[in-house]
Amino acid sequence: MSKKVAVIMGSDSDFPVVSPAIKRLKNFGIPVEVRVMSAHRTPDAAAEFSKNAKAEGFGVIIAAAGKAAHLGGVLAAHTTLPVIGIPVKSSTLDGLDALLATVQMPAGIPVATVAIDGADNAAILAAQMLALADENLAAQLQQMKVDMEKGVAAKNEALQAKVAEL
Amino acid sequence: MSKKVAVIMGSDSDFPVVSPAIKRLKNFGIPVEVRVMSAHRTPDAAAEFSKNAKAEGFGVIIAAAGKAAHLGGVLAAHTTLPVIGIPVKSSTLDGLDALLATVQMPAGIPVATVAIDGADNAAILAAQMLALADENLAAQLQQMKVDMEKGVAAKNEALQAKVAEL
Amino acid sequence: MSKKVAVIMGSDSDFPVVSPAIKRLKNFGIPVEVRVMSAHRTPDAAAEFSKNAKAEGFGVIIAAAGKAAHLGGVLAAHTTLPVIGIPVKSSTLDGLDALLATVQMPAGIPVATVAIDGADNAAILAAQMLALADENLAAQLQQMKVDMEKGVAAKNEALQAKVAEL
Amino acid sequence: MSKKVAVIMGSDSDFPVVSPAIKRLKNFGIPVEVRVMSAHRTPDAAAEFSKNAKAEGFGVIIAAAGKAAHLGGVLAAHTTLPVIGIPVKSSTLDGLDALLATVQMPAGIPVATVAIDGADNAAILAAQMLALADENLAAQLQQMKVDMEKGVAAKNEALQAKVAEL
Amino acid sequence: MSKKVAVIMGSDSDFPVVSPAIKRLKNFGIPVEVRVMSAHRTPDAAAEFSKNAKAEGFGVIIAAAGKAAHLGGVLAAHTTLPVIGIPVKSSTLDGLDALLATVQMPAGIPVATVAIDGADNAAILAAQMLALADENLAAQLQQMKVDMEKGVAAKNEALQAKVAEL
Amino acid sequence: MSKKVAVIMGSDSDFPVVSPAIKRLKNFGIPVEVRVMSAHRTPDAAAEFSKNAKAEGFGVIIAAAGKAAHLGGVLAAHTTLPVIGIPVKSSTLDGLDALLATVQMPAGIPVATVAIDGADNAAILAAQMLALADENLAAQLQQMKVDMEKGVAAKNEALQAKVAEL
Amino acid sequence: MSKKVAVIMGSDSDFPVVSPAIKRLKNFGIPVEVRVMSAHRTPDAAAEFSKNAKAEGFGVIIAAAGKAAHLGGVLAAHTTLPVIGIPVKSSTLDGLDALLATVQMPAGIPVATVAIDGADNAAILAAQMLALADENLAAQLQQMKVDMEKGVAAKNEALQAKVAEL
Amino acid sequence: MSKKVAVIMGSDSDFPVVSPAIKRLKNFGIPVEVRVMSAHRTPDAAAEFSKNAKAEGFGVIIAAAGKAAHLGGVLAAHTTLPVIGIPVKSSTLDGLDALLATVQMPAGIPVATVAIDGADNAAILAAQMLALADENLAAQLQQMKVDMEKGVAAKNEALQAKVAEL
Repeated sequence: MSKKVAVIMGSDSDFPVVSPAIKRLKNFGIPVEVRVMSAHRTPDAAAEFSKNAKAEGFGVIIAAAGKAAHLGGVLAAHTTLPVIGIPVKSSTLDGLDALLATVQMPAGIPVATVAIDGADNAAILAAQMLALADENLAAQLQQMKVDMEKGVAAKNEALQAKVAEL
Repeated sequence: MSKKVAVIMGSDSDFPVVSPAIKRLKNFGIPVEVRVMSAHRTPDAAAEFSKNAKAEGFGVIIAAAGKAAHLGGVLAAHTTLPVIGIPVKSSTLDGLDALLATVQMPAGIPVATVAIDGADNAAILAAQMLALADENLAAQLQQMKVDMEKGVAAKNEALQAKVAEL
Repeated sequence: MSKKVAVIMGSDSDFPVVSPAIKRLKNFGIPVEVRVMSAHRTPDAAAEFSKNAKAEGFGVIIAAAGKAAHLGGVLAAHTTLPVIGIPVKSSTLDGLDALLATVQMPAGIPVATVAIDGADNAAILAAQMLALADENLAAQLQQMKVDMEKGVAAKNEALQAKVAEL
Repeated sequence: MSKKVAVIMGSDSDFPVVSPAIKRLKNFGIPVEVRVMSAHRTPDAAAEFSKNAKAEGFGVIIAAAGKAAHLGGVLAAHTTLPVIGIPVKSSTLDGLDALLATVQMPAGIPVATVAIDGADNAAILAAQMLALADENLAAQLQQMKVDMEKGVAAKNEALQAKVAEL
Repeated sequence: MSKKVAVIMGSDSDFPVVSPAIKRLKNFGIPVEVRVMSAHRTPDAAAEFSKNAKAEGFGVIIAAAGKAAHLGGVLAAHTTLPVIGIPVKSSTLDGLDALLATVQMPAGIPVATVAIDGADNAAILAAQMLALADENLAAQLQQMKVDMEKGVAAKNEALQAKVAEL
Repeated sequence: MSKKVAVIMGSDSDFPVVSPAIKRLKNFGIPVEVRVMSAHRTPDAAAEFSKNAKAEGFGVIIAAAGKAAHLGGVLAAHTTLPVIGIPVKSSTLDGLDALLATVQMPAGIPVATVAIDGADNAAILAAQMLALADENLAAQLQQMKVDMEKGVAAKNEALQAKVAEL
Repeated sequence: MSKKVAVIMGSDSDFPVVSPAIKRLKNFGIPVEVRVMSAHRTPDAAAEFSKNAKAEGFGVIIAAAGKAAHLGGVLAAHTTLPVIGIPVKSSTLDGLDALLATVQMPAGIPVATVAIDGADNAAILAAQMLALADENLAAQLQQMKVDMEKGVAAKNEALQAKVAEL
Repeated sequence: MSKKVAVIMGSDSDFPVVSPAIKRLKNFGIPVEVRVMSAHRTPDAAAEFSKNAKAEGFGVIIAAAGKAAHLGGVLAAHTTLPVIGIPVKSSTLDGLDALLATVQMPAGIPVATVAIDGADNAAILAAQMLALADENLAAQLQQMKVDMEKGVAAKNEALQAKVAEL
């Protein structure tokens, strides 16, 4: 069976931004565990979780946080598993702070960063990693690509009527 | 044997920035192939490479590009393999353009972005992905963490003399 | 008869931003075709379209996309026709990401970039290009300038009453 | 014979940045005239030049300026010819000021903006516009694309030796 | 009698932002004329106005514009009167584009720039300039400072009740 | 008894942003005085207040201001007490102006800057400073950390039901 | 005789940036006094200077400062004279901090801001203000404009040889 | 005797930036301990140090780090002592990344942030905190202010000769 993916968010207020990742992972049939855990308010719990993650069957950790978003970095410090960071837009600076705090990691400790509020892509990226050892998942990803392509084509068709009205 | 990692750069002028990634991958014993390939100047070659990458034994693609850095996105469009993007700083805007052009991918096509000019971390991230199915590589990553820790401790020792002189 | 202008958008959600371009082109009497086509979700369709665009009678391609806006660059990679890029503002970073991803093209492959959400200007710019070989269109552009001038003068008149009330 | 291209720069200190555009246009065999002309220091000359440009056989105007780069906009205000803007990096703000001052034009008066210091692309874009009515020039552009592709392939070959040494 | 102040805005949509300047000038008893005039849509009218402004009794010109805000610079190019620029926030980039396009003027042609949407301060600055030769106006400005000080003190008093409730 | 904390805001419109700091200080039992005082509109009052603050029993000054936020710097210029700056987001630039104007102080005169609109943290920081000489306050801060940790754990529990519904 | 202009800089390290302003004012024959005075290190001296400036025969104050550049605002707080701010680029952030700290003044206290490191324009702006009551100075400004125009024309001539060589 | 100050830097390459803080603290006679310790490479050591810092006689922690600068936040998570953050400029983004990653801390865990590379101010701020319970240190800080004022006055005198030569 597939390794588990952990979805960690720094605050439960991030849940609406993060939930597309959870849904996407469930749709892929990937076992997912979700936690609220803060690099700053529960640093020991975060460190503990990360240190044990590999042994407990996790393959990938997704971390979503806003502002001075340290969560991804803190988790990555304690594990050799790949950590994916989702910078979350908050009430000031339009997400730029979270993006830079997530992506600009020093040498030795990468965080695989996706777009600001890009939870869906975080899940797809996790699936791509797990698919390296799971051909069934690789096939699902390939099918998703085909479906996206068809989806765009369908939207293109649907748009033509609107264009004609202009 | 481990899957191969492709290191693609948009221009041969990116080589000095990218070479730490190549060295790191070699040190891990991961087979690596390096290509100059441009999303804009050789788009067909890039698409072709990416479409075939999985079949040809690649597990991860690393893409390094500057300015309106589309290379990671273009490669990711044609494969289900994880694609890691290295935004390269060029002569204007201090790397911000490459960072945003790499990381802000639309839903469906993630690029796992590392820091501007963060080639070493791109290689480590690739190794972390491959290590999901390679315990030997996982052990190497764990050892690298231990070595880094010792390295910092040694630097801390060495610094005390300088501090005393202030 | 005038060459056609293609208006390509990366997502049908860009339609409200893009529609002023379509209307403007229709008003000029320029034949226009509109497509939803994504650099990332339908890369082959985009490449195919662009490669054939000149042969199919297009003179100019307008590409509108948000976030890591690669659409203009991808289309420009496959054609010698001028490609105009409209960076589209999305939910984070206020359009700066799309602007930089569109305008900061590497040497060899220009994208003629207009303002963020500047669809109307993209259409006028396309008309200016086509007018190089179409004196009737050049005359329309000249008339538009005269009309704009009158429009500003009329607004100036209308404002005086409001000013007097302050 | 082809229409002329005007290359206007706001200051003679911009010449090193702009000269690749002049060379590229000459290589295409496009007649080019070069002027130092400032939106702020010689506004009447700039306006006069632009008003007469079409009648004097120009097809495209390229404008290069730094800081609060108004030159492209001022020229575009007085002509229906397409105006291409090159934002020039100066000693502060890394070119961002010139980029925004060039590209963020209000509705009605587009400036086709290329990358900061992107003079070569400005020339190629001008050639693409003129090629709409000049099949010989279109063929040159197509050949340039083929040559670029070969150039990248050659650089890729040359790089392999360096890679092997790492 | 005092010299006149011209308040020029690039679009009548700027009127709500600009009107505090007009009110402030009227309160000072300074004669004010208001115009909608665009650097790009009515460039000749703008140049003409500016060239004649000194002769027609104006002492200061205030220019308000958004996006690639060239209006202040274009007016300053044609007059030796001081020109005050108000960068106006528009729908993208939060006013940064207008600020940089207004303030980053090249040597020789200053525009006295106030805060984004800072119309009230533009009027006060104009009054400060005119007050150099108008002691009555200087006295009004001094009184305004005293009133502001009292206003803050009063607000401080009023706030104490709210503070007590916390 | 504990030294007092002064909470100074540049405008009474900052009160909603600042009030969490006042509440937090009251909860800690720290005596707090609140003032509206402007670096620009009441500079003498601000200087006077700051010069006397130490003698009047204040231990820390918190200053909240927006835009070109000079309040913290002006207060710090006149006292040896630690000054904490809260940059306040206003209608343009998303708080970046206030952040830079508060934090980028020249050598000799520090302002301890917290996040944009980060009033709660300003109060906690003030308490941390006072706790250096107040073990009871130190104990409260320690308890707050424990409570935060429990709070996060509780939110984590509560979230699991929502996750299950996805 | 003309009123005096004060040129105040926050640090003597700003002198190379500021000296063009001093030279320009001397060339205009405007009496100028220069001071090093800091909003933060000598706040009382700065306040005192500004309060007395009008009575001591100053007409305009120019203030140059870097980083969290409060100098212009602090001087403006204490006088009704127009204050011109020169944001000075320092070792980080490329001058953006000084620009925002200078220009984003709250309502009531304007600082007439010029470009980053734009000392020459600060002097010209001061001259424009004084020229409102000094026709001789106005004539000099007009002559400067004519000379600038001729200078650009001469540079244009000189450039043609270089262009021919390309 | 005074409590100790810890100066922690994320990498020994930060030493030149940080050393002014160490010197300043020594000059104040404050006992200082210096460590290289990384939030990412030695997370357990950092956590351990911070948890014990109060018990081991530290009063303030200064943390200097660049890029995605998490060091201050990680230390602050484990202690109730005030933590001062120095954002360090690195090779890209001019220090903006480190500034935002340091200052934009979430509610509950403040980091008292000083200017980018502002080590001297970090030390002064630490001294201001300790001086709350140390009148001798407070007197030193007061004397430093007086000395700074004299220093500026002396520089002002020295500058007059240079000004006369212009």
